[in-house]
Amino acid sequence: MRALILNCTLKKSPAPSNTGKLAGLVADALREHGVTVESTRVVDQRIEPGVETDMGDDWTAIHDELLSSEILVIASPTWLGRPSSVAQRVLERMDAMLSETDEADQPVAYNRVAGVVVTGNEDGAHHVISEIAGGLIDIGYTIPGQAWTYWNMGPGPGPDYSDTDHGHEWSAKTAKTMAANLHAVATALTRQPIPA
Amino acid sequence: MRALILNCTLKKSPAPSNTGKLAGLVADALREHGVTVESTRVVDQRIEPGVETDMGDDWTAIHDELLSSEILVIASPTWLGRPSSVAQRVLERMDAMLSETDEADQPVAYNRVAGVVVTGNEDGAHHVISEIAGGLIDIGYTIPGQAWTYWNMGPGPGPDYSDTDHGHEWSAKTAKTMAANLHAVATALTRQPIPA
Amino acid sequence: MRALILNCTLKKSPAPSNTGKLAGLVADALREHGVTVESTRVVDQRIEPGVETDMGDDWTAIHDELLSSEILVIASPTWLGRPSSVAQRVLERMDAMLSETDEADQPVAYNRVAGVVVTGNEDGAHHVISEIAGGLIDIGYTIPGQAWTYWNMGPGPGPDYSDTDHGHEWSAKTAKTMAANLHAVATALTRQPIPA
Amino acid sequence: MRALILNCTLKKSPAPSNTGKLAGLVADALREHGVTVESTRVVDQRIEPGVETDMGDDWTAIHDELLSSEILVIASPTWLGRPSSVAQRVLERMDAMLSETDEADQPVAYNRVAGVVVTGNEDGAHHVISEIAGGLIDIGYTIPGQAWTYWNMGPGPGPDYSDTDHGHEWSAKTAKTMAANLHAVATALTRQPIPA
Repeated sequence: MRALILNCTLKKSPAPSNTGKLAGLVADALREHGVTVESTRVVDQRIEPGVETDMGDDWTAIHDELLSSEILVIASPTWLGRPSSVAQRVLERMDAMLSETDEADQPVAYNRVAGVVVTGNEDGAHHVISEIAGGLIDIGYTIPGQAWTYWNMGPGPGPDYSDTDHGHEWSAKTAKTMAANLHAVATALTRQPIPA
Repeated sequence: MRALILNCTLKKSPAPSNTGKLAGLVADALREHGVTVESTRVVDQRIEPGVETDMGDDWTAIHDELLSSEILVIASPTWLGRPSSVAQRVLERMDAMLSETDEADQPVAYNRVAGVVVTGNEDGAHHVISEIAGGLIDIGYTIPGQAWTYWNMGPGPGPDYSDTDHGHEWSAKTAKTMAANLHAVATALTRQPIPA
Repeated sequence: MRALILNCTLKKSPAPSNTGKLAGLVADALREHGVTVESTRVVDQRIEPGVETDMGDDWTAIHDELLSSEILVIASPTWLGRPSSVAQRVLERMDAMLSETDEADQPVAYNRVAGVVVTGNEDGAHHVISEIAGGLIDIGYTIPGQAWTYWNMGPGPGPDYSDTDHGHEWSAKTAKTMAANLHAVATALTRQPIPA
Repeated sequence: MRALILNCTLKKSPAPSNTGKLAGLVADALREHGVTVESTRVVDQRIEPGVETDMGDDWTAIHDELLSSEILVIASPTWLGRPSSVAQRVLERMDAMLSETDEADQPVAYNRVAGVVVTGNEDGAHHVISEIAGGLIDIGYTIPGQAWTYWNMGPGPGPDYSDTDHGHEWSAKTAKTMAANLHAVATALTRQPIPA
């Protein structure tokens, strides 16, 4: 089983990414379930604005990885209380998957599962989760219960994830639950897929 | 397999409900998959504001039905572009399920699936779907891909679902896809549940 | 100048309300600007589900207060990351104001301003603010910049506002800014109203 | 009085933009109120991901225009039911304005007003409006009542704005109301600004 983590931070490498750090815990937990995990920092690549798969940029490689992964994790920071522009760009390019079908004539996202990781230095994680999960459900991904984790610390502007230990234990425990639920529902759909 | 449809219209019986009418198509499609379907018009019952299961009102009966149903459908009208107050009240009372566990010590919503039906005379369905699905994922429900249907007609104030035939075919076809996906993922999770 | 605060907690009196407590700071700050402030705990009254002004219940009195107040504050707890069902019910009943016009033939909400107060024991304030502000803009209220305050403390379930001092200073300072901005924009619209 | 319209379509020039077309009606209506209107198609420029004003790209020119405009209009298409990635990128870069103050030591967005234009071929306008308005309120912009217009046509995938006449009259009338309200509240705040 394969998982793809798309880190949608706004910061290019080699700047440290809080979102990447928390997503790393999910990657570790998925690997403990025997899943092969690939991570991509989207902002390091050239991804054009648009809603098509092939726009002559780096998206086609990500698209290929999406199609070879039963599990997708979108990891986003929170800006203005909302998913990052990079996360929304990912969803826009994935929009084309709505009309791509597999050999069983089903949308290619069927029988794949997805979850969401969110960091922020204030507030907004549940909303970011709902926004991204809502988009992925549209595209055809199944979202397992509690397939998310997040870290933030309100009220008002506060520390970054890397600046404090507050709440790390909760976020890490929730990351393990997320990984377990992604793996379990992906397994169920592999053994008993949605009929064509 | 059992399904529960919670119609969250603001209108008490016997007033006709557009939301109930569209949800009825989902019920029909679920029955074609051999599912036993129960429907409840929430506003006809006494449901106190709060976040506990037992508040001495009609919620406990709904709670029992939730626990005996592998499939949940929340059907909501769109008011001010958002889920109805009745739908939010349902989510609030379901909040207590977060800390209720089954004999395997898992949250009671695990291995259950849910979908969303939305009607409106203007705009807002995708948002209502994201809001309700986001809440249900929190509680532990799995949301299959494309497990929703809706009907509306923008821009600006327009006809109700019952007033026109515009788009009915699309909403009905989408209702069938929704029912198929709910049934398929519920089946997969019944045969291969999330491990304790 | 008059302000109406609608406390949309789920808890009936005399249970203490965290939301009411934080909204009280906004009331105090408005009074320092010479504003007469009225507060209503909506859940203590009988407010039927619906989208009409006169449904034979306690809403008509609230509606009268809305029309005699230049400033409206909606204060809501956060449940499942979203505005309370009581806050959504308030918006639904206010929906009727869209078609109510004053002697200048303008929507009755024109030249009135509104702000939002949010509490929660986890995460979600910015989303609750956007949801409620979005509804009020639809109805015709003007939302001044930074006309909100909130308190919560993520990640994950945490203390209530009354249980800790963490962040109280920030929420109180933000409440004062909110009151100042509500008062200033209401004053500007009183002196220079939107032309008929 | 000056207005800046930021067209956040995903399509680069010279492709026709539905969003730009509807935003053009708002520009026309603002000009009838004597406002000088500047329009920028953001995707034609190089705008780096980030939350700072000066990142060595084309944003600084837009930032200058923002500071010389009393009125801001963000025009966005709807993708996956949400604001475009370009609109979110604009908000992210504007995030820096939170800590920029004018000579009166106020946030630079104070005493400025903003509105939202949305197009889509399905559903989602009210949500896009709430998301963008919520971000702008955070930054300090005042949002006048009914300072938005939109066009879409549900349910399900449908025609683009340019493909049909359905609903154009409503969207155009609403664009005029939007322009009038933006102009009126900007005028009120110019004559009676928020006190320092």
